[in-house]
Amino acid sequence: MHLLVIGGAGMIGRKFAESLAANPVLGQNTVTRLTLADVVPPQEPAGFHGDVTCLTADLSEGQAAEKLLSSRPDIVYHLAAIVSGEAEADFEKGYRINLDGTRNLFEAIRAANTEEGWCPRVVYASSNAVYGGDFPDVIPDDYILTPQTSYGTQKAIGELLLADYSRRGIFQGIGLRLPTICVRPGKPNRAASGFFSGIIREPLVGLDALLPVADTVRHWMTSPRSAIQFLRHAATLDLALVGDRPNLTMPALSVTVGEQIEALRKVAGDWAVAHIRRDPDPTIARIVDGWARAFEARRALSLGFTTETRFEDIIRAHIEDELDGRIA
Amino acid sequence: MHLLVIGGAGMIGRKFAESLAANPVLGQNTVTRLTLADVVPPQEPAGFHGDVTCLTADLSEGQAAEKLLSSRPDIVYHLAAIVSGEAEADFEKGYRINLDGTRNLFEAIRAANTEEGWCPRVVYASSNAVYGGDFPDVIPDDYILTPQTSYGTQKAIGELLLADYSRRGIFQGIGLRLPTICVRPGKPNRAASGFFSGIIREPLVGLDALLPVADTVRHWMTSPRSAIQFLRHAATLDLALVGDRPNLTMPALSVTVGEQIEALRKVAGDWAVAHIRRDPDPTIARIVDGWARAFEARRALSLGFTTETRFEDIIRAHIEDELDGRIA
Repeated sequence: MHLLVIGGAGMIGRKFAESLAANPVLGQNTVTRLTLADVVPPQEPAGFHGDVTCLTADLSEGQAAEKLLSSRPDIVYHLAAIVSGEAEADFEKGYRINLDGTRNLFEAIRAANTEEGWCPRVVYASSNAVYGGDFPDVIPDDYILTPQTSYGTQKAIGELLLADYSRRGIFQGIGLRLPTICVRPGKPNRAASGFFSGIIREPLVGLDALLPVADTVRHWMTSPRSAIQFLRHAATLDLALVGDRPNLTMPALSVTVGEQIEALRKVAGDWAVAHIRRDPDPTIARIVDGWARAFEARRALSLGFTTETRFEDIIRAHIEDELDGRIA
Repeated sequence: MHLLVIGGAGMIGRKFAESLAANPVLGQNTVTRLTLADVVPPQEPAGFHGDVTCLTADLSEGQAAEKLLSSRPDIVYHLAAIVSGEAEADFEKGYRINLDGTRNLFEAIRAANTEEGWCPRVVYASSNAVYGGDFPDVIPDDYILTPQTSYGTQKAIGELLLADYSRRGIFQGIGLRLPTICVRPGKPNRAASGFFSGIIREPLVGLDALLPVADTVRHWMTSPRSAIQFLRHAATLDLALVGDRPNLTMPALSVTVGEQIEALRKVAGDWAVAHIRRDPDPTIARIVDGWARAFEARRALSLGFTTETRFEDIIRAHIEDELDGRIA
């Protein structure tokens, strides 16, 4: 089976490629060919036994989509996007990459579908940012999408296009509304959500981390490991079960910052918690206040998507996957 | 006040212009200038006391949107669309007119907003076709939009764009999800929903009408008169009350075909009902079965949008407005 991963240089794309190298079997199929594409050169995953091609491409440009698809992969993973903060700061870039880029990709598939009947599976990374405004504490699957950012708007439009192209038989789409990923590896970044990872990641290596919000703040998060499992599961899931609503809210764990901290204490000890420095930031607090705190995610759970149910397990997954099992 | 009505040659656009001719006062303002635009030449409404300009333009073409907006109207009514059946039959035309055309319009406003701070009100005609798939008998305002047609998809995308551009202060948007309009004047057309009007309109002038579905079929409809009132009310409504969800399901009447027929009997008599010929059509029955039957429309009602509450009143409005008060 041949997989094309657009956005292959991003954190999720890279981890997904590594996961396929470690275990290329998806359901009844084996991934024998992997094409990674991104606006910056993706890295070939170590240990993959099949063919790997790494390409640099920007979906918003000319015939980029047509070229990427010329090898007619069996599954197209569309993980590429301008992230939330940048799409908000740069209106034109956000719409160009997140909306036009997605539409270019879908249109290129439509052209090939019309010409030769090619009908790949398309796995689309959406986001909980499609939700906004007033919502209940626990958002059900049939709740309206009223994003309050341009990024969320662009993702919601992508979901609508995915559903319409799928309904018309142009491709077989499935959209995954990804939760916040925690613990996000790497250096601290300036994303408003960064502290959810920072207060775990930094203390575990003996560094201080700033906590800009109250301990009572609740958020919806899952591990990188679970996110990769979502992508793997989406490869082989029977789409007949998904029906006419192919965009699914992924399961995750609804947890408060206080619960995160207590889990850190349990897994690593008081010394780690002592590295968390409370530094209230009203701007971040206000942004985070607009985010969803929990979802039912019933459809995804019934379709076999799974997540951690205790935050300790999210911390332990991070220690195993990123720290070789060792903490400072 | 200067109003631009894009889609001014359509049934609703024409009736809106006639309504403004009859009464140019909208809230505290008087409409002194009216620009009507459509892909076919719109007709100047009789009796309008201000300036009327009629333009032929296709929003999906070149600089059409910029030209239409060059007179900087105070309110832009965007009523133009490829209808449901055609958007389903012609994928490219539907996306070109309904999505690209809408986006061209919004982008042209954005350019003028950036340059000179112009920030008109934009009234966008959406449709209940944004709903699809499983839904409850009575759909609440916060129910998810999962359209099952390309037309519904395009309208839902337009809603998302309207909300994002409004949130960013590019224009002041309000979207109206219009119900089925009944009694639709004119000749029978081939729309799957045509019979809801046909079984009233044709008998009242002594003609036979075909009824392709069972008497138990329930649907959501309002009069042309109410639809025009929605457009008038949207001109002056305080948008601060609409908040961060500017797309509203308009109120209407949830009525069964059987109730329509009994109302016709009450208003016109048995002779009129005798003109309804039952002619079951499984294809139409199946299409209609996928349509929403009722909405709560609480937000629109609380914002002062109103509709008929008895189907007799819808029939009487038709007799007054279209038949000069006389029936066959």
